[in-house]
Amino acid sequence: MNLFTEHPGLFTDLYELTMAQGYFCSGKKDEQAVFDYFFRINPFNGGYVVFAGLQDLLIILNDFCFQKDDIEYLHSQGFKREFLDFLTNFKFRGDVFSVREGEIVFPNEPVVRVEGNLIETQVIETLLLNILNFQSLIATKASRIRKVAGDRFFVDFGLRRAQGFGGLQASRAAGIGGADATSNVLAGYLYNMPVSGTQAHSWIQSFENELTAFRKYVETDPLNAVLLVDTYDTLKSGIPNATIVGQEMKDKGNQLKGIRLDSGDLAYLSKKARKMLDENGLQETKIFASNQLDEYVIQSLIQQGAPIDGFGVGTRLITGMDSGSLDGVYKLSMNNHIPRLKLSESKEKLTLPGRKKIIRIIDDNGFFYADTVALDDEKSIDQIFHPIYPDKNLRLKNFRNEVITGKVMGSGKILINNESITEINEYLSLRLDKLPVEHQRFENPHIYKVGISKSLLDLRTKIVKEWGEKIASENT
Amino acid sequence: MNLFTEHPGLFTDLYELTMAQGYFCSGKKDEQAVFDYFFRINPFNGGYVVFAGLQDLLIILNDFCFQKDDIEYLHSQGFKREFLDFLTNFKFRGDVFSVREGEIVFPNEPVVRVEGNLIETQVIETLLLNILNFQSLIATKASRIRKVAGDRFFVDFGLRRAQGFGGLQASRAAGIGGADATSNVLAGYLYNMPVSGTQAHSWIQSFENELTAFRKYVETDPLNAVLLVDTYDTLKSGIPNATIVGQEMKDKGNQLKGIRLDSGDLAYLSKKARKMLDENGLQETKIFASNQLDEYVIQSLIQQGAPIDGFGVGTRLITGMDSGSLDGVYKLSMNNHIPRLKLSESKEKLTLPGRKKIIRIIDDNGFFYADTVALDDEKSIDQIFHPIYPDKNLRLKNFRNEVITGKVMGSGKILINNESITEINEYLSLRLDKLPVEHQRFENPHIYKVGISKSLLDLRTKIVKEWGEKIASENT
Repeated sequence: MNLFTEHPGLFTDLYELTMAQGYFCSGKKDEQAVFDYFFRINPFNGGYVVFAGLQDLLIILNDFCFQKDDIEYLHSQGFKREFLDFLTNFKFRGDVFSVREGEIVFPNEPVVRVEGNLIETQVIETLLLNILNFQSLIATKASRIRKVAGDRFFVDFGLRRAQGFGGLQASRAAGIGGADATSNVLAGYLYNMPVSGTQAHSWIQSFENELTAFRKYVETDPLNAVLLVDTYDTLKSGIPNATIVGQEMKDKGNQLKGIRLDSGDLAYLSKKARKMLDENGLQETKIFASNQLDEYVIQSLIQQGAPIDGFGVGTRLITGMDSGSLDGVYKLSMNNHIPRLKLSESKEKLTLPGRKKIIRIIDDNGFFYADTVALDDEKSIDQIFHPIYPDKNLRLKNFRNEVITGKVMGSGKILINNESITEINEYLSLRLDKLPVEHQRFENPHIYKVGISKSLLDLRTKIVKEWGEKIASENT
Repeated sequence: MNLFTEHPGLFTDLYELTMAQGYFCSGKKDEQAVFDYFFRINPFNGGYVVFAGLQDLLIILNDFCFQKDDIEYLHSQGFKREFLDFLTNFKFRGDVFSVREGEIVFPNEPVVRVEGNLIETQVIETLLLNILNFQSLIATKASRIRKVAGDRFFVDFGLRRAQGFGGLQASRAAGIGGADATSNVLAGYLYNMPVSGTQAHSWIQSFENELTAFRKYVETDPLNAVLLVDTYDTLKSGIPNATIVGQEMKDKGNQLKGIRLDSGDLAYLSKKARKMLDENGLQETKIFASNQLDEYVIQSLIQQGAPIDGFGVGTRLITGMDSGSLDGVYKLSMNNHIPRLKLSESKEKLTLPGRKKIIRIIDDNGFFYADTVALDDEKSIDQIFHPIYPDKNLRLKNFRNEVITGKVMGSGKILINNESITEINEYLSLRLDKLPVEHQRFENPHIYKVGISKSLLDLRTKIVKEWGEKIASENT
């Protein structure tokens, strides 16, 4: 991940820097602050989110600085010289607490907590949100596709339809969520991910006929060739020609790896294709499919018994499509050792004050039962409260507590080991196995409980009351 | 735009490289090819697309190469040494023909044409699609928002919710489409765009009370301060406190620039806010609004008479939201001097062969009447044919022809001047003025005619017929 490290300080909304300058000029630069990262709504009308992007974030924070050019640019935008001198030597030296990458998380819990001085915790806001929101979105989408694909091959094909350079991060996140491979070579290179892909229509078109195109391809790439069969006519031309080439390979002791269907009715065509291949002794040749796939289309294909061995998923994976963004926010919860909150017009947007952690409540069988947001010094939890309607609460008996947030960066130094995409995905798989299936279904998933502890509830009630009194007194 | 230039050759789908190796090994590396970039569906259920991304693309093509590390990586992935030696010295030396950036374009017309040898035209496919699809998508969205916003201030606030590093390109495209400014500092720096933004809730929360927070902010940033008024209670606390500060500034001969509403009912709150500000002599203080805005919400706010002077638009601009991707493709239309096409299961996906240009048909009043896809050597057009149902055709009288595609890169060298974002947006505005409003409306826009010329129709008919005969004869 050496991209964008030239200008990490400028990868931000301007107001982070105007506020930083304001803190600096108001004598607040050494005040200590705590910020929480959390989201409010599960994307895809789903029941959970796969947390992703942590490692990229930590690497960038580790190298976070302002270059000479950045400083000159900010000067041209009216920033003050004394503040810019401060930025010249600026490093991020804060602490970061987080759940593990690949963890299953839920709305309104502080997935990441950042502590440090007010300036360093503020100026990383946009960067943090940009990285975590997007990678978590796509990892979640990929996990849904993996769920329906089962053991079938599932490859990310999305780069051409990705949102610009975000395609790089999307491919990484797709791997975390469960894609076996990506077509994205840069992702393969930077993140050590398996890459996959053989030919497009242009290959076929560039030869005088389809059969020659297929023959030439398997000559140059005999082990991996997956022949694209829909350039002219899938059933009348593509599959018959692929069959001829497959038999020619067989005669030489080789094997045609596969064919790819990229248009038409994939259920119908895959059944026809399987039959045609099998009748010609090509039982080992796989059938891959692509074209506007997502978890719903794949589920439907499988339910129809389509004999498809692998799926190439593009646009709808790499952009999240109907859920194009995770709504994660980054809110101040403590400043100058005083717990802070944001009141709001709507009760749902009231934030949680103080330094907090997430405790997962695990049942007898090892399944996730609920999460609790607790104050950082709380030891164990025997009762949780609904965060908005605290009259709804729950006594806990015979449950195990698992604190799922931990320190991942101390004084700007990374404290955790670099994990491979495969390792992160394996962790996700373990965790998804422990999430009851009713939270994983696509239609109206059961809402996973996220409560708050008694101590946190009491703290919040006290602050809300104080603010209410303060505002009332200022208005009288 | 110095990002990603380290590895432009790897920012690709793997199959571009496996095909390139195949062309190399099959003795096809010097064959000449022509590819077309076009899309099939207007996003946002709209009636047009704003073409964007050209300048970024040309800059990357100009520097396109494979680094030593890239070559070693590809070797580790099984690519052959002789092909990699070829890539080591590879440069893009092709020609690019395109409409101008900021042009209004429509489905199924060859917006960009790339000519060169088969390898150089193939390996840039993913890069070209990634850049043009996404920037055109977001420029189109921004143009819709600009349309409803009229002369009001419209700023891109989206970076935190953008799809990763794609946020950089999204901000550029938003500027092309009509955003007055962006919160994205890196976009400001790299693309020389106006940047904007003052404070978040955390600023307010970090002080002992809101009034102090406001006072301190205007001390450090007296000219640009836009006070965020919804941290505790918009009507009871935020606006009254902003009013106090505005009056204090007035007493010193200054002026409070504005307030920002970020939650609640923006129509209701903006009317209340305007009244409260005016009653306190702050008629010059502007009202800005943000929070889940898009062209539909802004249109509704304006219809309700909400006195809002500026809009900060985030997620729904920067991701395109419900239309998360433009479906642009890149198809071979000529190879080895032979026109090529892709047949398909569906008539709609039949491609157009040969070297082509776009001719815009302009009516007496200077308005766009239709576009024609013609062969490159055609001089003028007096009849156009429906591309799928050629029985539908149209004789043209008293129309002016304007060729809107031109050469922008020759032998890998950029031939056009670098335009500023403002210049590109000005060109867009001129063009939108000439697009009849029925193509610009949001609900069921009138479909703009894109036809093909007689010569192109005849060429395609001939090739389809030849292929039909060929396939038939191979199957008998």
